[in-house]
Order: sequence, then structure tokens, then C-alpha cells
Amino acid sequence: MTIGARTRLSAEDRRDQLVALGLEMLATRRLDDVSAEEIAVAAGISKGLLFHYFGSKRGFHLAVAKAAAAELLARTTPDPELAPIDRLVRGIGQFVDYVRENSDAYVALVSGGNRVDTDLAALFDATRQTNADRLVDALVELGAPDRPLLRMAARAWVAFVEEATVNALARGDITRAELVGFLERASIPFISIVIEDPVALQTVMDRIGPISGS
Amino acid sequence: MTIGARTRLSAEDRRDQLVALGLEMLATRRLDDVSAEEIAVAAGISKGLLFHYFGSKRGFHLAVAKAAAAELLARTTPDPELAPIDRLVRGIGQFVDYVRENSDAYVALVSGGNRVDTDLAALFDATRQTNADRLVDALVELGAPDRPLLRMAARAWVAFVEEATVNALARGDITRAELVGFLERASIPFISIVIEDPVALQTVMDRIGPISGS
Repeated sequence: MTIGARTRLSAEDRRDQLVALGLEMLATRRLDDVSAEEIAVAAGISKGLLFHYFGSKRGFHLAVAKAAAAELLARTTPDPELAPIDRLVRGIGQFVDYVRENSDAYVALVSGGNRVDTDLAALFDATRQTNADRLVDALVELGAPDRPLLRMAARAWVAFVEEATVNALARGDITRAELVGFLERASIPFISIVIEDPVALQTVMDRIGPISGS
Repeated sequence: MTIGARTRLSAEDRRDQLVALGLEMLATRRLDDVSAEEIAVAAGISKGLLFHYFGSKRGFHLAVAKAAAAELLARTTPDPELAPIDRLVRGIGQFVDYVRENSDAYVALVSGGNRVDTDLAALFDATRQTNADRLVDALVELGAPDRPLLRMAARAWVAFVEEATVNALARGDITRAELVGFLERASIPFISIVIEDPVALQTVMDRIGPISGS
């Protein structure tokens, strides 16, 4: 994206440009430190015009957080060509990589889980729910009965992966390979708990063998 | 605790009384809706005197959240007389029961995970860390090697239990028995992942048998 002080852009392109600048800034700072003033200067527009597009600083922050959530979900979109178990395992690595490369953007989204800003809280919840729904799809395809407990378990598993990833990054003494290896090993018994039918489970376990051993 | 409009209390007792009133209110509303005005009226003091004790509304809310965290940790204190595996399993039920009985207080603490209010965020993090440390103690006693990955895994497991519990309550279609049964079943493979020594693991599994079957 070309950014020039005197570039004339359509309203939509300008909006996209401002959000892209916000996302870039989010890579190295927390959402609350993404400055509307600096963004306006970088885009060569007035702060007033920025607020015209987004209503307020909070509106701008919400648009940036939405873009971060959309990027996370796009980066972890399951490949429908893959078998469900491979989608699940690949999703772990993709999620870990997104968070490693965009830790501030991700933490900004997580800290939106705060109930004070209900828009940010809803965005965080919807993002976690999308990840949980994708997991439910794969697990149902693998033979898990679709029921309340499975949907709750999927949310809990997503929270498990999130916390492990954020904590490993914060600690700094765990490698990507250790983290992904741990999450893959942990996913197998997790799957075996929610798939109750022994025949379906055996089929899954036969497939999983080579992954867990890697 | 006796609450009378004209009761004379020492500064410390007054502070405790105000926090206790805040905790009571927290049982049925979110932290941000715990009104300093209403609390002052209930205690028969002026709002100014309440602020004198806590500095500000935020200071009062932080004191109430700290009391909620202390109550949660007290309710889930491991019994040193119990074997580590029994401490672990009993802790699950105690945590679930605390959250079921104090869901708004617990959610207030979780929503304190918000990075905007750094004091509340630190309190939430410290509470989750205490739970994770207790788990690490039990797991090390069971034979798990104490290393960064175990400490990360313990944080992830605590997040798993938290999310499952909060989600089950929010859904409303999962019973306590289903929730606790699921968490107990999930804890067993979790333990088996972090305990690597096969002899230690076999010892644990021999003990776990009757629990998982119950």
C-alpha cells in the first residue's frame, strides 16, 4: 500500500489505509498506545478527518482490533481438502505462528476480553467462538457427538492453546518446537475424551500415530 | 457481621465491613456496577468517608476484587494431608463450586485481566499463577520434571478449567456433574503428558483408576 501525504484516496481506501497503519503500529505496541495522532500524520490527514471516518479514538481502535481478528482467522482458516485431524494439528501451528509474529496485536485482542468495553469484549468472544466452532466441525467429522459438552470442551481447548502460546511467549524460555509439540501431544488425549465411540476413536488413533510420534 | 447505621467501628473493621458489603453486592452484579454510594448508605457512612478509606472508587473496587481473589484461593487451598492426585481432583470440584456460587465475583476478577487497569490485571494474573503453582507442586510430587514447559502447561490447564467452568455456566445446559466429570477425565491425560517417566506415570495411573471410573 502506497502511503503519501498528498495521495487522494476514496473514503473506503482511506479507511483501509488508516486501519493498515494501525495494524502495523499494533505489531510493536498495545492497542491503547496506538496513537490516532501519529496515524493521521503518517497518512497525511488531519486528526479530525480520522475521527470523521471512525467516530472516535475508541471507534478507530475497534476497527484495528477487528482487522487483527480477521487476520488471525484468515491465517488459521482450515483447508477443506485436509482430513479433520490434519486440519486440527495444522491449525495449532498456524495459531502459534500468528501469535508469535503478532504478539502485541493478539494480546490487544485478548485484553479486549475486558467487560468494560463491550464492543471489544464481543469481538474477542466472537473470535474465540469461531476457533471453537472450527474445532467442533473437525471433531464431529471425527465422530464426536455434537452436544453442549463438546461445544464447551472446544472453548476450553481454545483457551488452553491461547494461554499456552501467550505464556510461552511471555516466558521466553520455550521454543516454538517445544510449544507446538506440547500442544499436539495434548490435543490427542483431548480428542480421545470427546470422541466416545470406541470404533471412531480407534480410527482416529490409527491416523494420529505418526503425528504424535513426530 | 453486624451492620448498623450508628455502629462505631475501628478504621480496620470499617474497611473490612465495606469490603464485605462490596463482596455481597458482587454476588449479583459486575464489579463496575458495585456502587460506592449504595455501599456507603448500607454502612451508614458518607461517600466521602468511604473514599477516605480506599482513595477512590477504583481503589474500592480493587479492594473488593482482592477479597474475591483471596476467597477463591482460600476455598481451593490444597489439603496437605491428601495425596497429590487427590488434591488435584478435589481442587477441580472446589473451583467449579466457587465459580458456580460466585459467578459475578469470578467474572469480575477475570474481566480484570484487561490490560487497561493494570492493578486488576496483575491481581487476576497473580490469582491464576497461584492456582498454576499449586498444580505444579502436585505434578512435581507425582514425578513430573520441573521445567519451563511444565509451568506453561500448568497455566494452560488452569485457563482450560476456567473457560470450561465459565462457559458451562453461561450456556446453562451443562450440569455440575457433567462439568466436573469432564474436567476430571481431561485431567488424567493432561497429567500423563507432563509426567514423562514411565514408572512414575504407571504409579499415578494405578491410583487414578478408581477416580476416573467414578
